[in-house]
Parts: sequence; C-alpha cells; structure tokens
Amino acid sequence: MRPSGRELNQMRAVSFETGFTKHAEGSCLIKMGDTHVLCTATIEDRVPPFIKGSGLGWVTAEYGMLPRATNTRMRREAASGKQGGRTVEIQRLIGRALRAGVDRVALGERQITVDCDVLQADGGTRCASITGGWVALRLAVNKLMKAGDVISDPLVDPVAAVSCGIYAGQPVLDLDYPEDSEAGVDGNFIMTGSGKLIEIQMSAEGSVFSRDQMNQLMDLAEKGVGELAAMQKAAAA
Amino acid sequence: MRPSGRELNQMRAVSFETGFTKHAEGSCLIKMGDTHVLCTATIEDRVPPFIKGSGLGWVTAEYGMLPRATNTRMRREAASGKQGGRTVEIQRLIGRALRAGVDRVALGERQITVDCDVLQADGGTRCASITGGWVALRLAVNKLMKAGDVISDPLVDPVAAVSCGIYAGQPVLDLDYPEDSEAGVDGNFIMTGSGKLIEIQMSAEGSVFSRDQMNQLMDLAEKGVGELAAMQKAAAA
Amino acid sequence: MRPSGRELNQMRAVSFETGFTKHAEGSCLIKMGDTHVLCTATIEDRVPPFIKGSGLGWVTAEYGMLPRATNTRMRREAASGKQGGRTVEIQRLIGRALRAGVDRVALGERQITVDCDVLQADGGTRCASITGGWVALRLAVNKLMKAGDVISDPLVDPVAAVSCGIYAGQPVLDLDYPEDSEAGVDGNFIMTGSGKLIEIQMSAEGSVFSRDQMNQLMDLAEKGVGELAAMQKAAAA
Amino acid sequence: MRPSGRELNQMRAVSFETGFTKHAEGSCLIKMGDTHVLCTATIEDRVPPFIKGSGLGWVTAEYGMLPRATNTRMRREAASGKQGGRTVEIQRLIGRALRAGVDRVALGERQITVDCDVLQADGGTRCASITGGWVALRLAVNKLMKAGDVISDPLVDPVAAVSCGIYAGQPVLDLDYPEDSEAGVDGNFIMTGSGKLIEIQMSAEGSVFSRDQMNQLMDLAEKGVGELAAMQKAAAA
Amino acid sequence: MRPSGRELNQMRAVSFETGFTKHAEGSCLIKMGDTHVLCTATIEDRVPPFIKGSGLGWVTAEYGMLPRATNTRMRREAASGKQGGRTVEIQRLIGRALRAGVDRVALGERQITVDCDVLQADGGTRCASITGGWVALRLAVNKLMKAGDVISDPLVDPVAAVSCGIYAGQPVLDLDYPEDSEAGVDGNFIMTGSGKLIEIQMSAEGSVFSRDQMNQLMDLAEKGVGELAAMQKAAAA
Amino acid sequence: MRPSGRELNQMRAVSFETGFTKHAEGSCLIKMGDTHVLCTATIEDRVPPFIKGSGLGWVTAEYGMLPRATNTRMRREAASGKQGGRTVEIQRLIGRALRAGVDRVALGERQITVDCDVLQADGGTRCASITGGWVALRLAVNKLMKAGDVISDPLVDPVAAVSCGIYAGQPVLDLDYPEDSEAGVDGNFIMTGSGKLIEIQMSAEGSVFSRDQMNQLMDLAEKGVGELAAMQKAAAA
Repeated sequence: MRPSGRELNQMRAVSFETGFTKHAEGSCLIKMGDTHVLCTATIEDRVPPFIKGSGLGWVTAEYGMLPRATNTRMRREAASGKQGGRTVEIQRLIGRALRAGVDRVALGERQITVDCDVLQADGGTRCASITGGWVALRLAVNKLMKAGDVISDPLVDPVAAVSCGIYAGQPVLDLDYPEDSEAGVDGNFIMTGSGKLIEIQMSAEGSVFSRDQMNQLMDLAEKGVGELAAMQKAAAA
Repeated sequence: MRPSGRELNQMRAVSFETGFTKHAEGSCLIKMGDTHVLCTATIEDRVPPFIKGSGLGWVTAEYGMLPRATNTRMRREAASGKQGGRTVEIQRLIGRALRAGVDRVALGERQITVDCDVLQADGGTRCASITGGWVALRLAVNKLMKAGDVISDPLVDPVAAVSCGIYAGQPVLDLDYPEDSEAGVDGNFIMTGSGKLIEIQMSAEGSVFSRDQMNQLMDLAEKGVGELAAMQKAAAA
Repeated sequence: MRPSGRELNQMRAVSFETGFTKHAEGSCLIKMGDTHVLCTATIEDRVPPFIKGSGLGWVTAEYGMLPRATNTRMRREAASGKQGGRTVEIQRLIGRALRAGVDRVALGERQITVDCDVLQADGGTRCASITGGWVALRLAVNKLMKAGDVISDPLVDPVAAVSCGIYAGQPVLDLDYPEDSEAGVDGNFIMTGSGKLIEIQMSAEGSVFSRDQMNQLMDLAEKGVGELAAMQKAAAA
Repeated sequence: MRPSGRELNQMRAVSFETGFTKHAEGSCLIKMGDTHVLCTATIEDRVPPFIKGSGLGWVTAEYGMLPRATNTRMRREAASGKQGGRTVEIQRLIGRALRAGVDRVALGERQITVDCDVLQADGGTRCASITGGWVALRLAVNKLMKAGDVISDPLVDPVAAVSCGIYAGQPVLDLDYPEDSEAGVDGNFIMTGSGKLIEIQMSAEGSVFSRDQMNQLMDLAEKGVGELAAMQKAAAA
Repeated sequence: MRPSGRELNQMRAVSFETGFTKHAEGSCLIKMGDTHVLCTATIEDRVPPFIKGSGLGWVTAEYGMLPRATNTRMRREAASGKQGGRTVEIQRLIGRALRAGVDRVALGERQITVDCDVLQADGGTRCASITGGWVALRLAVNKLMKAGDVISDPLVDPVAAVSCGIYAGQPVLDLDYPEDSEAGVDGNFIMTGSGKLIEIQMSAEGSVFSRDQMNQLMDLAEKGVGELAAMQKAAAA
Repeated sequence: MRPSGRELNQMRAVSFETGFTKHAEGSCLIKMGDTHVLCTATIEDRVPPFIKGSGLGWVTAEYGMLPRATNTRMRREAASGKQGGRTVEIQRLIGRALRAGVDRVALGERQITVDCDVLQADGGTRCASITGGWVALRLAVNKLMKAGDVISDPLVDPVAAVSCGIYAGQPVLDLDYPEDSEAGVDGNFIMTGSGKLIEIQMSAEGSVFSRDQMNQLMDLAEKGVGELAAMQKAAAA
C-alpha cells in the first residue's frame, strides 16, 4: 500500500557515515532512505551573552538545504537575503531537541553548534537532522572527554526523531516525500533512547484527527525512535 | 499552588470585544487574563499565485507584538529589519490552524488575512491569537454571507487553542507568564469546537515527559477548548 | 461645509485613556475622533553613545501603524523588512517634538522611548502621537519623581500638535481623513501649552499658498493646541 | 557677527554649472558657498503604477551624499544596506517641492527623476538640491520641448529653497554649517519665483520660537528665494 | 619543500564522483585533495529577461560554503542576510568561465544553473568549482542531447581551472591551504582543454611579481589544465 | 579603426584635478577621456580588528557610481538596499591594488579609506579609480609626513592601472565604452611605476585568447602604466 512497498511500521534504510568531513569536531552524513543530511558539530569556548558566567553550556543548531537537494531547484537562501520561515522554524526545533538531551552543567561553559545541511531531500529532513545531529554532537563530546576538558558525560541518553502520519487513512512510520506530500495529518516525535518524550509536533492541514489516531501514531514513534537510538549508539561508539 | 490562585484546570477570565476597530471586515480584542490581542480580518479578492484559478479560498495570518507589550521593551521588528524566528513560527501556526477550520471551496477564490497584534502580553499570546483570530474571521465571513458573496458557510466548527504544561510537577491549564517561564514542559493544543485535533505542539526544554503526562495534558486541553468554543460562538453570533 | 459637519475651527472629540497597558512606565490611548493611537513610555538607564557621560537625558520615539488601521490593509513593515520613508519621517518628528519640551539636565542620564502605535487611523496620526505621547511621557516622569529618581520636573510645559489645512478653499482645524485626502495644502503645528512654536511643517502638493493663508492657519493652530494642552494636563494629573 | 562675515540677510555666493555631466537629459552643479551638489534629471517613458493611464506626468527625486562630502567621513549608505532616515526625509521633500512647480498635464505621461548628490557639504544641502534640481529639471524639459514631445511648458514658475534660522539671537539668511550647528531654530522655505509658498519646515531642537520671529524669518526667505529664482532663470535660459 | 611533499609542478589527487545526488540533471562531487565540492547542474526552460526571445541559452553559477567546511566555523551566509563579497566574486567568475565554453546557439533558449557547494575546503575551491562544475554541466547537456532537445553539442571543449602561485620563492602548481595562506602572489588560470585562455586572475597582496615569473606560472597552468581536462572527459563520458 | 580615432597603443587624454573637495585629507578628480572619478582619501586613527596592536597600517577602498553616471539611469545602490556584485568586486580590487604599493610598517597603525565615486562613466572606471585613488592617497600621506606623523615614506612607487583588450581582432590600449561593450576579451593590468606587476585580470566572455595575444596586451599595459605613473607623480608633487 505504501509507494515504497514498506510495511506501515517500517522505517527506511538508515546509515551513518561518521567523519565525513575532517575539520569539524564531530561530523556525520546520515542517510534515511534518499534523504541525506551532512551534520557537523563545532565546539567554541564562547557562550551566548545570556548565560555568560553561569558555568552552563549551550547547544544550538543551524539548518540549510542545498538549492538542488530537491526535485526542482529552490532559491539559495543566502542569495535571497534571509532564511525562510520554514528554515528558521526547523533550526529552532533541532536546537531545542538536542539541548533537551544535554546536561548543561556537565558540558561546562562552552557552545556546540550543530550544522545540518541537506544534500539530498526525500521527506523527513528535520528528523534526520536531529538524529544525525546527535551523532555529530556525541562525537564532538567524545573528543572533549578524551582530552579531559569534560569529566562527566553530558549526553546520558540519545535524542532521535521520526515522522509519523496518516497516509491513505492508515497510520504510517517515517514518511518519505511521496507520502508526506499526500498526508493530511503528519508530525514529528522527538524522544530519548529510553522512551521519554521531548517534543511532539502534530499538524493537520485541511483535515483533523482524533485522540485514538494520536495514540496509534505515538506507538509507531516509540518503535521508530527505539531502532534509531540503537543505531546512533553503534555509530558513535 | 498556582501564582494566580487558579485551580489546576481553570482558565483565566476570557473576553471578546468585537468591532474594536472600524475599518476591518472583522475585528476583535481578545483578553485572556492580562494577555490582550487585537485581531482583524481583511478580505481581499486576490489569492496567492499557487491557487490562482483553482476556485479555492485562502486564509493566512500575521502576528506582531508592540514593543512595550512585555515587561521590558523589545526591539521593534520593523526597525530591526526583519521578523524574528519566533514571530515567523507563530504566524505560520496561526494561519495553519485557522485554515484547518475553513471549507476552502465554500469560501471561494478570495483571501482573508488575519492580523494578530499583541497589545499586552502575559503568556499564551499564540493561543489567544488563534482563538480571537477565529472570531475576527467569523465576523468577516458573516459579512460575506450577508452580502450573498458566499452561500454555504465555510466555517462549520470554531477553532480554538489553549496552552497546557507541567508547572511545579502538576499538569495545569492555560499558563500565564509566571507559570510559562518556570514550566519545563508546555505546549499548545489547537482543536475544533467539536473536540477534533488540529495541531499539537508539546515541547520540553531541559526536561522530558511521559506518555501518561501527555494524556493528562490532553484532558485539560479538551476542557479548555470546549469552554473557549462556546464563548467564541456567543461573541460572533 | 466640512464632511463631519464641524465648524471650521472645531476639533474632533478628544479623549485620553491612561494606563491602557500595564507594563509600560507610562501609557495612554489617545482618541482624536476615529484616530486611535496607543502611546507607551519606557524608561531605560542607558543613553545613546553620543551623550554618554554628559549627565543629559534623551527622549526618542518610534511610530508604527497596524496593517489594518487603515481603510485598505497596508503591508506590515516588519514583514517587508524595513520602515517606510513616511514612518521614519514621522518618528523623527515625534522625537524632536517631545525633546523640545524636556529639560534634559533635569531628566538626568536616562532615556525614555515613546512608542506610538496607531490602532485605527482617520487622519492626523502624527499629531495624535505627539499629543498622546506627551501624556505617556508625563506619566513616566511622574513615576520617576515619585520615586525620587528625578528631583526637579523636566517637563515644564506640555507639547501638543494639531493639523491645519486649506479644505475647499477654507482654512480648517484638525483635518480628518476625508479632508486630508482632498486638501491641497496642509500641515502640522507643534507648540507648547504656553503658545510657543516648536515645529511647523506646511506643505502643498500640486498647489501653493500665500502668507495671508499661512497666518490664518497659525491662528487656528494656536486655538487647537491651547485646548489640547488643557486636556493633557487634566489627563496626566 | 556671522562667522563668514556676511550680513544677516546676505546669501552665500551661488553659481550654476550646467551640463556638468554629459549623459543626463539635464545636469547642473550648483554651488552655494562651499556646498556643492550635482543635480541630474533623467527622463523616462514609464510612470509609477498609481498614475498609469492617467495622462499625468511624475517628478521624483533621490538624494545622496558622498561619504567624504563632510568634515568626518560618514558610512556609505549603499554599504550599510539602507538609506538613513535623514536621507529618506530629504529626498521626499525634494520630490514634493519640485512637483509643486510642475503642470503634470502639460508634462504628459512620463517621469523625470532628479538625482541630487552632494559632492561637498557646508550646510543647506537640501535647499541647494531643490534649487539646483529645478535647473536640471528645466534643462531636461527644454529638451522635451525642443523635440516637440511636450507642447505647452509644464514649468511656469521656478522653485527655489533657502534656509533661515535664529543664530546668536538674530534671524539670518542661508545658514552655513558653522551657523547651522549652533542655531537652536532653523528651517527651510520653499517658494516659487513669484513668491508663493510651497513648503515650510521650521524646527527648534532644545528651544522654542515666537510668531514674531517666524515673521522675520519669512521676510528673509522671500528675499533669498527672489534672488535665487533670478539666477535659476539665467542659468537655464 | 612543499608542505605536502609534492613536486613544484604536481597537482593534488583529483577524483570525480558523478551522480552524487539524484534530483539534479547533472551532479558531481569533485575532490582536489582535501577540497571537496558538490556541483549540480539544473536545467530550466526560462532564460534571463535580457536574452528572452533571442534563441540563445544561458549558463550561470552560484557558490556557497558550508559553515564548517573550513578549519574554524564561518558564519552561515543565509543567516547573516547576504552573500559576502568573496562569494559574489567567485560565483560571477564560475559563471563567466563556464559560459566561455558553451555554444549558446546550440544550447537553445534554456538556462543551466550550476551550484557549487563546498563541503570541505583546503584551498583552491573556486578552481575545483569550475572544473567540477563543467562535469555537472556536461552530464546535464548529455541528458538534453539524449532526449533530442539539443541536436548539436554546445560543449566543444572542456573548461578547467587551476591555481598557481609563488610559494617560498618558487612557482608552484595547485596550492593547498597551507601554501595559499603563505603565498604573496597567486592566482587562477581558466583554460580550455585545447589550451586556449579564458580567464587569468593573478594577484599579489603585499608583494609584486615580474613578467618572467608570470610566464613560469603560465607554463605550470597549461600542464595542470591539460591533466584536468583529460580526467573531466573520462568522468563525464 | 578605433571609434575614437585613437592609435592602437594610445590612451585617452588624462587629467588630475587635485583638491577637488576640501574636507578630505587627499582628493582628486581624475578624468580619463569621458570617465570622471572623484577620489578622496580619509585618514582615521583606528584600524580593522584583525590588525589591532600590530603596528601595521591599512588601506581600504569603496566604490560607487552616481545613478546617472551612465547612459541610462541605474538604480541607486543605497535605495536597492545593497551593493551589487560588480561594485563589491571592484572595490575589493581597488583596495588590494593600493595596499600592494604601501609599506604598512612605515604607515603606522592607522587606516586610510579611499572613496572612488564615478561622476561620469565611459569605460575603464576601475582603472581610473585605482590611478586617481593613488593620487588621493599620495596627497593624504604627504599631509601625514608634513605633520611629522609619518617619518619614512610608505609610498615608494606609484600604483596605476590600465585596461587592454582585443577589439575588432586587434590588441588595443585603454578601452572606452564603445570598445569595451564590443570586445570579446579584455582586462585590467595593475602595475607599479617601475614596471612590476600587482594584479592581472584578463577575461573572455564568449571567446578565448592565446598566449601570444596575452603577451601583446602585456606590452600595451606596460606602456600605458608608464605614462600614467609619470602623470601621477606630477599631479601629487
């Protein structure tokens, strides 16, 4: 029934290529099917003004899409002079999600910026960015711990995200672009490896959904995030 | 236990002052406690390029906050040369929410722009904007129907929104600013008057939540939206 | 002869609702007929760089118009990415006008920002902004004096403004929008409560005027400002 | 008493060098003392959207200052990404002033853009721009009339401007920079060659003025504009 | 003598991975040592206004660098609101270079946009962009020819580019970052596969060079471009 | 054969009017035929952050064109909100070129900004800007030396620039606009008075050139720069 022939509760093939670029403290090319996102983590000694002197660390994120990551070319945001509303919303989400999994006292007063740049898009880029971004973050923190700059591990539990939605009347896991563009209801579930909720964004455009359906989507999300968390740990070991 | 002395499941006092400004096809000053938002609805005969000739209507929203709506003065967005990420995110949410309650065929090929401008803020401005925005929209559509420009009512069910969160360990309804700034978990539930879900945005910053807690928040939201919908209908009758 | 039926030298009904918003140090909703402007005054301890360390205070103003304050919706300035020429010109005028009535030594090294946001427009918004802005400023200064932060009153004489113009060949006081859009010659007179001149901006578009006419307009302005100053004092007492 | 040794009612030396650049339909370098402004007039067949098809012409103006036209270098506006408030205000004034002297029916449906670029500044640049801009406009219109594109002369009376102010307690004509930076009250009078008023902008910063003083300044302005108009006619003959 | 141990006239290892992304009509990841650039070519049926209806085609380019492509993180251009001077200069160069190798009559009235995005930088990104960009362009044109949309091949000769400079007093070929940051004189040579010159940009900062040195650099460039052209042909065969 | 009747190796008439504006530390109006550029040099005691405390000086440049410097009016860059790609490229070139002729140790920790504003354009504006800019720079440095602020002359050799290209199949020196718009190959040579090379920018659009032709152009450039350097020395003596 799904265009890709997947089961309702089956994710796309997922892979992590760590060390994809050499300069960043952590880097990872995540592939969720045909969605490919390059995630890099940059450690800096400065923090934003509002936490200066607090001893707390900060994690933030930026998101971008190469102009021809998509089926038709999109205008380059740097050329149009600003980041679009969708971009801003996504990068705020990524930052919030990753921060939820960070012990900011243990991190110490430094900032890690996670850049998520979509090289190829086929639906679910924000979830792939969070899941891959956490691996880049993990690798950067590993470096800090190895160097003795951080003593207690600030990342106790992985953070991963997966999309769920109602496609052709059925709740499905991990929508690809053909599903995403048809689904009247879809959203993103961000959770920890141990199954705690961090963020839920469910949205219907031109449609509505019931509490029963919401519960079914939540079940799918728990399954998906569980699988992703296992792969994240393996990739960043 | 709540700073305001309210019950856990008690909303703030809500009022709607319709016709607050005279030029707009629909206008309404909504007050949710000390949060005051002026909502206006503007009807235009043009639609966005991507639906031109489709016969479908469009509803969109813009959001703003006066510089001194808040406790300390914020920089005027027009002066800083762009809308901040938070603003863009909120106005996209309002537009999506209102559109979910519109029969775009019945509306016909015209656009209604709902402007939500916060005159005074005390938490929950996006929920107040959606709830008050629907009233302004309703009034504008009433005018279209009275004039015979629209035959079948495109607004079958009110759209309303309320925030819920976990404050001091307890699930509470309709957070005000003192609660909002303390809550580790909070979010917005957008629903129809008949109890269907349109959008859920739950988010934890520096915290996590369980599925049980999620269910408790959903119960509160259903209660709150039910009360708001009744008031919306009365206000725009 | 005037569309509103007013006498040539008769102003619209004027009212001041002080304390319209709760966060600002001073706030006032001024209504001059159907022109409604929300004015707030914000006190900050910093001053602009060019007077740092001088011991002098500063008063500045910003001006905005809600998109649907007018008969047809105007584009939101924050969305278009900059303040238009008309906005910039008006807010510079308001700031200059208010500063002319301030003893900057008595004020001490602090800044007061007066925000004037037009909720509904029907001509004469810049004059209403100055007149209402002075009341907000007065209320904020009252607070400083009550707290003992300022000893000698820096506001010795009210500042008020009124428009005058030549409509249908006759000099008239306080033009509303229907008059304003027809008048070939019109302008604004900013004066102190004791009748001194602060600023005159008379302008003809597609027309000219004589010195005699200029003198008649000045007589009207003196009458109007006198009445406004009395109301300002009463409102901010 | 004046820093330059001029009489109270004496203007600076004024000259017009027409044809200063070769591409523009009209061009003129005006020198008012050490204030030098290059004015060019460009004729285009298009008009702004709001008068398309009306048969009426349009005259507009833009103003700029070279970064080192002033005593200390100012930031280049093109580099800072926008025109400052002062620039926008001035170019709106120039456009309004020149339009007041144009018979837009006689001009026909075409636009003339007058660019005023200050090469060297010593006070009074907006007045010099208007006065020199009219000469550039006159030269461009001469070309249209010679070519038979315009039959009846759309410029019946010159438009000129001069600054007046109160310096060291005395009303003076045509303030240079040392006077301008000291004067508590000053402004600009824009008039026709035959003595009609087009625009008055009188402003006090940190001071006030009386109606008597206003009358004295008006007398000076009439004298100054009369002299300028005679020179304009000679220059553009 | 060279930090990398290369001979003076030896290029870095070069590879082309074609089809790196699936949506673009042509795509190629070029690696010149540690400089990795993703190049995509997008075919569109529209052309810029200035050649509309001419029957001629157009090739243009855009250039970007991921924030952490470099040793320290650079600010994202989309976030800072504009493309920097260096970016604009480079993308104009790439477009000019590629156009020089295109028979625009044979291409027909369509536009090909070549996006060059640096995933990892180690000197020579603009040369890698041109060389890899040509391969993406070649692949896109192959598709047009296969489909019969283009009959005669518009790309008769490859376009490639290589940097040369004077490092530690010696002329060297294909500078990497450690050399580039030390060299007082360096530049880029863009040539066709058959050895014709398209563009030369030699530049000294804080130094000068002689005509003899210029000739030596030209010899190196001819060698380098010859090698690159052979590889380009093989990659896009 | 050339539109102007000049010999292949003949430059246009060149003149320098020093002291054209009074405020700048150095100023010069250079005319190369009908290309007129006003160059001013501004001395400031501050330097860019990246050399603060180094004891080294800095020279930078900005470039602009008045809207009607050209045959048809161009949009004012300050009004369009940014400097175009061509402008940015040119001003970076001018700065780099002038810096190459400066002993930054001898200059001491101060910055000189050279503004080059094109009053009238007829081809070759960037070369005229460099050549005239050097004269303005020389005059400003003379002032520093006279005042004893600089002891050893930081400008040992003039910097001048000239364009060369292939017009109608022939190598020609100093292209004017009619030649420039026809030439398939052209570029700029920046050299010192003693014949050393600083920068070469040769570019073909829709064409290619041979090494032989490159050598002929270089011969022309040497002749042209030699003549310019002699005139520069005379002008700034």
